[in-house]
Amino acid sequence: MRLPLLLVLTLSSACFAKDTTIQSPNGKIKITVSDTHSTPSYKISFNDKEVIQNSSLGFNFKQQASFAEGFKITKTSNNQVNSQWQQPWGERQTIIDKHNELTVTFNKPAPHGGTYIVRFKAFNSGVGFRYEVPKQTGFESIEITKELTEFAIANADKATAWWIPARGWNRYEYVYNTTPLQQAGLVHTPFTFKNADGVHVSIHEAALVDYAGMVLNQRRPGTFQADLTPWSDGIAVKKHGAFNTPWRTIQIGEKAVDLINSDIILNLNEPNKLGDVSWVKPGKYVGIWWGMHINETTWGSGEKHGATTQNTKYYMDFAAKYGFDGVLVEGWNIGWDGDWFFNGDVFSFTKPYNDFDIDELTRYGKQKGVQLIGHHETSGNVSNYRNQMNDAYALYEKANVSQVKTGYVADGGNIKRIDDNGIARHEWHDGQFMVNEYLHSVKLAAKHKISINTHEPIKDTGLRRTYPNWIAREGARGQEFNAWGTPPNPPEHIPMLTFTRMLAGPMDFTPGIFDMGFNGLGAETNRPQTTLAKQLALYVVMYSPIQMAADLPRNYLAKPEAFQFIQDVPTDWQHSIALAGEVGDYIVFARKERKRDGYSGNDWYLGAVTDEHARTVDIKLDFLDGDKVFEAQIYRDGKNAEWKNNPYDIRIEQRIVSAKDTISLKLATSGGTAIRFKAL
Amino acid sequence: MRLPLLLVLTLSSACFAKDTTIQSPNGKIKITVSDTHSTPSYKISFNDKEVIQNSSLGFNFKQQASFAEGFKITKTSNNQVNSQWQQPWGERQTIIDKHNELTVTFNKPAPHGGTYIVRFKAFNSGVGFRYEVPKQTGFESIEITKELTEFAIANADKATAWWIPARGWNRYEYVYNTTPLQQAGLVHTPFTFKNADGVHVSIHEAALVDYAGMVLNQRRPGTFQADLTPWSDGIAVKKHGAFNTPWRTIQIGEKAVDLINSDIILNLNEPNKLGDVSWVKPGKYVGIWWGMHINETTWGSGEKHGATTQNTKYYMDFAAKYGFDGVLVEGWNIGWDGDWFFNGDVFSFTKPYNDFDIDELTRYGKQKGVQLIGHHETSGNVSNYRNQMNDAYALYEKANVSQVKTGYVADGGNIKRIDDNGIARHEWHDGQFMVNEYLHSVKLAAKHKISINTHEPIKDTGLRRTYPNWIAREGARGQEFNAWGTPPNPPEHIPMLTFTRMLAGPMDFTPGIFDMGFNGLGAETNRPQTTLAKQLALYVVMYSPIQMAADLPRNYLAKPEAFQFIQDVPTDWQHSIALAGEVGDYIVFARKERKRDGYSGNDWYLGAVTDEHARTVDIKLDFLDGDKVFEAQIYRDGKNAEWKNNPYDIRIEQRIVSAKDTISLKLATSGGTAIRFKAL
Repeated sequence: MRLPLLLVLTLSSACFAKDTTIQSPNGKIKITVSDTHSTPSYKISFNDKEVIQNSSLGFNFKQQASFAEGFKITKTSNNQVNSQWQQPWGERQTIIDKHNELTVTFNKPAPHGGTYIVRFKAFNSGVGFRYEVPKQTGFESIEITKELTEFAIANADKATAWWIPARGWNRYEYVYNTTPLQQAGLVHTPFTFKNADGVHVSIHEAALVDYAGMVLNQRRPGTFQADLTPWSDGIAVKKHGAFNTPWRTIQIGEKAVDLINSDIILNLNEPNKLGDVSWVKPGKYVGIWWGMHINETTWGSGEKHGATTQNTKYYMDFAAKYGFDGVLVEGWNIGWDGDWFFNGDVFSFTKPYNDFDIDELTRYGKQKGVQLIGHHETSGNVSNYRNQMNDAYALYEKANVSQVKTGYVADGGNIKRIDDNGIARHEWHDGQFMVNEYLHSVKLAAKHKISINTHEPIKDTGLRRTYPNWIAREGARGQEFNAWGTPPNPPEHIPMLTFTRMLAGPMDFTPGIFDMGFNGLGAETNRPQTTLAKQLALYVVMYSPIQMAADLPRNYLAKPEAFQFIQDVPTDWQHSIALAGEVGDYIVFARKERKRDGYSGNDWYLGAVTDEHARTVDIKLDFLDGDKVFEAQIYRDGKNAEWKNNPYDIRIEQRIVSAKDTISLKLATSGGTAIRFKAL
Repeated sequence: MRLPLLLVLTLSSACFAKDTTIQSPNGKIKITVSDTHSTPSYKISFNDKEVIQNSSLGFNFKQQASFAEGFKITKTSNNQVNSQWQQPWGERQTIIDKHNELTVTFNKPAPHGGTYIVRFKAFNSGVGFRYEVPKQTGFESIEITKELTEFAIANADKATAWWIPARGWNRYEYVYNTTPLQQAGLVHTPFTFKNADGVHVSIHEAALVDYAGMVLNQRRPGTFQADLTPWSDGIAVKKHGAFNTPWRTIQIGEKAVDLINSDIILNLNEPNKLGDVSWVKPGKYVGIWWGMHINETTWGSGEKHGATTQNTKYYMDFAAKYGFDGVLVEGWNIGWDGDWFFNGDVFSFTKPYNDFDIDELTRYGKQKGVQLIGHHETSGNVSNYRNQMNDAYALYEKANVSQVKTGYVADGGNIKRIDDNGIARHEWHDGQFMVNEYLHSVKLAAKHKISINTHEPIKDTGLRRTYPNWIAREGARGQEFNAWGTPPNPPEHIPMLTFTRMLAGPMDFTPGIFDMGFNGLGAETNRPQTTLAKQLALYVVMYSPIQMAADLPRNYLAKPEAFQFIQDVPTDWQHSIALAGEVGDYIVFARKERKRDGYSGNDWYLGAVTDEHARTVDIKLDFLDGDKVFEAQIYRDGKNAEWKNNPYDIRIEQRIVSAKDTISLKLATSGGTAIRFKAL
């Protein structure tokens, strides 16, 4: 008799953990993590339809074997979070953090194995995940050559994307492209698209610290791969021992505005590390700046030097009279004569020009109740800046300066640093070196109670939560391109930015140009391609805790009724809501003011802008407090307004409204409406 | 009395050598090399108008300081060359090499200095230059992170470019874009454009050996920078001691066809290193191949296995009867079942399937006078191939195989090699590793008297001069995309390739599909988007020493009159002339046959193709030998031919012609004309 074979199954946790899922609190978003494909992978569905198809996870290293094939799930754990926290300043005061968390451990046995963890968070408005690589033998020193994270878009052939090219010479400063998704190549984040089901998605990252910035590369039609910006020596990321990556974020919403009405990026950042930040002050400013861009004054010394004691006092007088907190002055420091664009080593950050008396201006400013705003243009020579940085901040601290605009004007890939051997190396603005350098400057500034507004920056990834003195940055084509850009920003630029760049955080766009005709009106010259009313709406549409009235004072004095809105509009908010809009077409925001003491403030503000198409948008005012009545002070395009030849046609009127009303916003071509709802 | 100061000028060779120039032999092209800008630079003019504006030269290294700023000219020398040499096979038998040469030495003193040489050659049809870095202290081991060579195009805003994107997943296999030059981003070479003066230019490289392939990156509008394809560890090129780079080539011509009628690439390559290459034989072949692409047969085993002994004998019979030299057989070796695309390690290059009797086919082939053509598909797993390579070639040598088609099907960046520690690394097809690997396979094959036809190759840079057994390669979208490509190759694809890809060297395009309707006719299905006459013209238009009759034998038997041209057309030439054409529009070639003994052959052949536009092109027959009369056997589109629904309308006629005649070529939409001028 033959005995039947006994089959013995060995049960281990690995056998069960093949596929594991979590959902968002409202159940609409589902993440599935798997080890059954060639590499660990994840996928995401929304309302039971795939948004992200099976997408790889992993890394290539220079020394060690890849974290790619052969890794299996060995452990999972879950968590639920439902909390809220307060921002010291921001688009809204209270942030709700509600999400479900799944932590997955992947392991491959020796030889050439390893362990890593991926932590997923499912919010109602999207997903964030990051890698956590624990301490392990053989990984004491790590050089990452490639991150293998994929984002495989479902039904990619029917999707539309709005994007800017990455690794170009002009950093983030490109006009946005609208194309079928499959025509995008190497793109920056936030990367926004609409899939075949009309679902809106935006891919970005949160908490970018001590790591390379991620761009996306469409490797195969519809599949984007993380593409880390490398060091000058070709390595992407350098680490020692255990490390976490930034969070890779995938925001998902039925409506385009759902992308805006989300706090995922902030919720994925660490809480405030600076303690008391009462010295970080939202506000408005004017400055010696636009005049240089339209060639009336110069940064360099000479007859037309903008940054003189006398000129600064004039601006301080203007600021004091019209309620501005600060005066930005560019061109105050030695180095602007000669070839600064090509060799920023000429800049001193402690020696002013002879015609700029910083002590006198400190005294004058205190008397007027207006602060000087500092300016540090590095021209990309960061070693020169680093060597002087502490002295430079100390000088400003002594001068009662509490806000500095920094600049890193240099082609992409051309930031110059001097290494330990005295050799010049050229880095990218978004490589690991500069990610660290920017944050260093912010942390050092905090020691001097100085807030930083970074131009030519690393993209925003929400670090304002952890370092609330990092108040704003550029990181897109701003107003200056309307002075000399080829081309100027097109009419759709603002409603494009609000669904892309602005998902990352505040932008120092510098709105409020009142004179469109400094090169002549029409469509062919360099000028802001908007109406006047749209320039006012920008103060509500383009969120920043610091807003510039960018034009020359005389242009505001010439249009006092329109200027009134700029004088009134605050820059800090209890609430913000994107009410309506479509990517690249139009956007309407409502915000409730937040006063300096942090709790009071009853007025609401509305801003609406459109692209090259005139349109009428009906807005219910049900966001207004139901128990109040408001005087709506409306600044809107006049009947004949159109941006090319009749931008100044503006109509200013008042109406009594309440939460029960609906208002019809008639926007001209590249037009806008700005409203102050003054609580009665 | 005050003595006047005596100024003593120290004269050194460095003082004089600020700007140095050479011209082409006919004086039309002028190169100026300079050290007066921030880095060494060069510029090129043609007919006294700038073509390339001041463009940087130099390198970044991982360890050493850059060869960038601070280098001055310390020495120059000149040379003139006027010679000719013979090709063992090719588009023409005699190659004239006439050029002027300038060698410039640049030096920067210590610390952080160095020395390098740039050698410029000015031909009548363009420029080549390369770096020569001599042995020097501190440069024993060199890791290049970036080559700083620029190509700054004059009047770039008015130029038009024809290009394919680089570093994509699909290697070189993209449909060409026609755009304003400034819309090109990261592009492959040959990179062809027409400037504002109508001058045609193409940038490429010659003699790519032990170095990374170069793509071009448009850093600033109009300025392209060399962008070297990196190793998996991020380094671009690894060298020890003295080294030369490949030649960077800039072809220049008034007419588009001037780019084709140039031998610069070959003239910049080293002479033949293989000695006697009489075993390298141009010829024509058929094969078990197309059937798999149109899903009639399979590579893998089973009922529909294409590579069987019986099927191969059928093809050998067909080849013998109709004058073909070889039969390519794909799918003969173990590994085609299962997941070969993702894991090429499954391939054996020495073990056939059970139904493929290689010994019997060797015997049968000898009897028929037809050779088996070998096939090695690696699926990008080059270590698996390398481990078996010598045995695989030995097997073929024994089987009387003298030509092998190799394949490296894998996404760009996904070539898999196993390093010395047993760790898998992923490389690019055009990185330094694969440049060396491809050449190794060619050199090893030569030891076995085997010629190599590389698919999914490194781009051609003229190494067929140095290794004449490297007979052809793919490196663009070939005929197979007409079986299943999304989309198929468009009507303009061939006249686009002839001014771009084909400037680099021969292509195994595999022409001659006679059945367009295997998925149905029309514009929306996968099929060759051409007329039948255009398929015949391809044998003259798309130069290759080996040409396939790609279709299934039954389709040739069904159209014997048209098939006669394929039987007649040779693949080796005494002369070749691009007579007329415009990039992406149309092209007309004339070639004079070269017989096997190397010297005789009196017939001429003409091939003309057009894009989606029908057109009439009048051609003077003054290329024909004046002392002869010819019977022109003309294969042309019929009166009602058009590619979509009437591709088969072909008219075959004969005329007596001589060099004094003009012929009017009436080309249908995506049509062609093929002519044999039979000497009487």
